[in-house]
Amino acid sequence: MSTAEKLILTPEPLTPEAFALFGDVIQVGGDPIMINEGTTERYHRLSDVTLGEAGSPSMGIINIFRAQPRTLPMPITMMERHPLGSQAFLPTNNKPYLVLVCLGETQPDPSTLKLFLVEGPNSSAAETPPSVTGVSYKANCWHHPLIALGDVTDFWVVDRLGSGNNLEEKDFDANMDIEIQL
Amino acid sequence: MSTAEKLILTPEPLTPEAFALFGDVIQVGGDPIMINEGTTERYHRLSDVTLGEAGSPSMGIINIFRAQPRTLPMPITMMERHPLGSQAFLPTNNKPYLVLVCLGETQPDPSTLKLFLVEGPNSSAAETPPSVTGVSYKANCWHHPLIALGDVTDFWVVDRLGSGNNLEEKDFDANMDIEIQL
Repeated sequence: MSTAEKLILTPEPLTPEAFALFGDVIQVGGDPIMINEGTTERYHRLSDVTLGEAGSPSMGIINIFRAQPRTLPMPITMMERHPLGSQAFLPTNNKPYLVLVCLGETQPDPSTLKLFLVEGPNSSAAETPPSVTGVSYKANCWHHPLIALGDVTDFWVVDRLGSGNNLEEKDFDANMDIEIQL
Repeated sequence: MSTAEKLILTPEPLTPEAFALFGDVIQVGGDPIMINEGTTERYHRLSDVTLGEAGSPSMGIINIFRAQPRTLPMPITMMERHPLGSQAFLPTNNKPYLVLVCLGETQPDPSTLKLFLVEGPNSSAAETPPSVTGVSYKANCWHHPLIALGDVTDFWVVDRLGSGNNLEEKDFDANMDIEIQL
């Protein structure tokens, strides 16, 4: 007889309000600053690159993460977080992907899990160019590793390099049976 | 009678070696670190986010620049630089764009101008996904504002927010007649 607790998560749309506890949604919005003699709209300070406590030697770095697509439904067994800095994922295209986050002081709390779908461009909107959406996780925000959909996808990743341990990975309790679906 | 000095620039391919004086070419290359249980390749520390002198209150920020496409040939009358921090341009797609840089201690030196074409994906390469290429200008690197080609293009931009003047713009001498062409 199984005593596993079954938790099935389906995604909600990613909005800045729904994501505020976990970090920033990085996308075009609000009024831009016109620069470069009117040829460029600057959407200013959409997210900050935070680097942990003052005084710890650290810096922001830019990487590329090349993510294999995942097959859904997919079991979720663990989460990770970066105690000392933010981590931003900035896609190189406008294909959809999933973002899974939760709260928890020392352990990821499965009752707080939130699954967000970052949608591709809205085909009903006459947007030029099609919108792209990135996310930045706050320091200490529990999140699942990248969940690309459909294709191998590259993300620009802006995170922290420096002293100290900036990676915690925690498994959920073995009696939790967590699954994400579209 | 015109005494203008005519300078016509055509692009060369962007390579890390050719761009090294000016900053970093940010693209997939070298051996990745396998992370996320083998589902993600991390191309680590492709560029650093530099923030000027130690002690000046500053931080990295993430913005979106939405650039209008330029029509070529195009006259070049000015350059700009950011004395206190690097500035990275990370495209949201793989369309081609131009990068124009030069050297110069206090003024941009037109004799050192270099025009680079960031090409779209190599259609002869069976790449998955198609490559994307960003650039990061070093602090104090003279560069021209964004030169998108063909379409309105969004770039993720990682730069510095903080005290001090981080923008210098300088016009070329009026007797310089500089033009870029494909």
